[in-house]
Amino acid sequence: MVKKVYGIGVGVGDKKLLTLKALEVLKKVDKIFVPISKEGKKSIAYEIIKDYVDGKDVEELLFPMIKDKEKLKKYWENALEKVLKEEGEVAIITIGDPTLYSTFSYVWKLLREKGVEIEIINGISSIFASASALGIPLVEGDEKLCILPQGKDLEKYINEFDTIIIMKTKNLKEKLEKIKDRDDYIVGLVKRVTFEDEKIAIGKLDELNFDEFNDYLSLAIIKRVKK
Amino acid sequence: MVKKVYGIGVGVGDKKLLTLKALEVLKKVDKIFVPISKEGKKSIAYEIIKDYVDGKDVEELLFPMIKDKEKLKKYWENALEKVLKEEGEVAIITIGDPTLYSTFSYVWKLLREKGVEIEIINGISSIFASASALGIPLVEGDEKLCILPQGKDLEKYINEFDTIIIMKTKNLKEKLEKIKDRDDYIVGLVKRVTFEDEKIAIGKLDELNFDEFNDYLSLAIIKRVKK
Repeated sequence: MVKKVYGIGVGVGDKKLLTLKALEVLKKVDKIFVPISKEGKKSIAYEIIKDYVDGKDVEELLFPMIKDKEKLKKYWENALEKVLKEEGEVAIITIGDPTLYSTFSYVWKLLREKGVEIEIINGISSIFASASALGIPLVEGDEKLCILPQGKDLEKYINEFDTIIIMKTKNLKEKLEKIKDRDDYIVGLVKRVTFEDEKIAIGKLDELNFDEFNDYLSLAIIKRVKK
Repeated sequence: MVKKVYGIGVGVGDKKLLTLKALEVLKKVDKIFVPISKEGKKSIAYEIIKDYVDGKDVEELLFPMIKDKEKLKKYWENALEKVLKEEGEVAIITIGDPTLYSTFSYVWKLLREKGVEIEIINGISSIFASASALGIPLVEGDEKLCILPQGKDLEKYINEFDTIIIMKTKNLKEKLEKIKDRDDYIVGLVKRVTFEDEKIAIGKLDELNFDEFNDYLSLAIIKRVKK
């Protein structure tokens, strides 16, 4: 059975945002498992690290972008089976950080249940890289922040939080529609942060063109404007 | 006047969690500014990087741990003045990430107003490193997360969020007192994550001993237990 599994966050698009520790572990493990969302499709996480791990044994794990938990379970279990049958130390990589909305967390849970030794190596998250790209801090002092996947309950929390992050949606435009009459907030949109085709925009809601930001690797940072 | 300022997140205690980019920039800049909270006290951020930057020109910036914004302003302006009078490229380092509750963000704002070229280099945040240390993901699927500095409004949001992070307080015990009767949550406490003297604890609120966690570099992760 597998000796140890490293869950490694490889950060965002800029491969220099990898940590020294992630690089060290990627170089020493016997195999690297890379997530793909569709057969034949490139792994974004692997694209970030591939220049560092030339010649390494790499195997794909399929995690399709579907919502049905019962169907997904089959894919997590397939992944578990592949990982368990290795004999040495392996890495499973993920974009961003492994603790924040990562597909890896499901396999992590299954591995834990099997008593496998696991070490998590954190990565740079898109929430921080996006704030940097926009040139604004996420939160200062005693400001409150929340992350609402798919914009859930945005119309409620818009009145209560200083900073709101909307992520995990392909349709930011629709999710932000609910607050379109608010002018006490500024909105930053970021797509594929630090990738070569990164796009950013910042302004009041009615000034923004969302067309180029309807992509799964996009997020919105909504910040209250202090009067 | 200073040519360019890098705001660099040096991550948590483990110096291997520095990014490749942070290391590259730290080695090339002409000077590194390091924050201290008191004259004569060591800079935690500098302790993380010092083995990498032997012989570099290093200067301290004093940011005392006080709350009075008017008094703090003087310190930010002193820092600004020191940075502006440099002639080359400099780095200002900060623990964690520069966009999340970082003292750097105030100097960042002043530098922006002066038209100085600024580049932010993200770092590993204690919120992710703490989840790793506890062995739990922060959020999965469509779970909502919020960060409440000093536990502000915890008694309200405990009913609405899947994961709540309480940070920026020296007194976690008092801040969590408000929810002590809840048994539908599990609480993870982490002090000085990835430092040599890291401490963690996880359990129901009434099982936890907070005594060792009343430290400014501590945080609590409160997670709803799914039935």
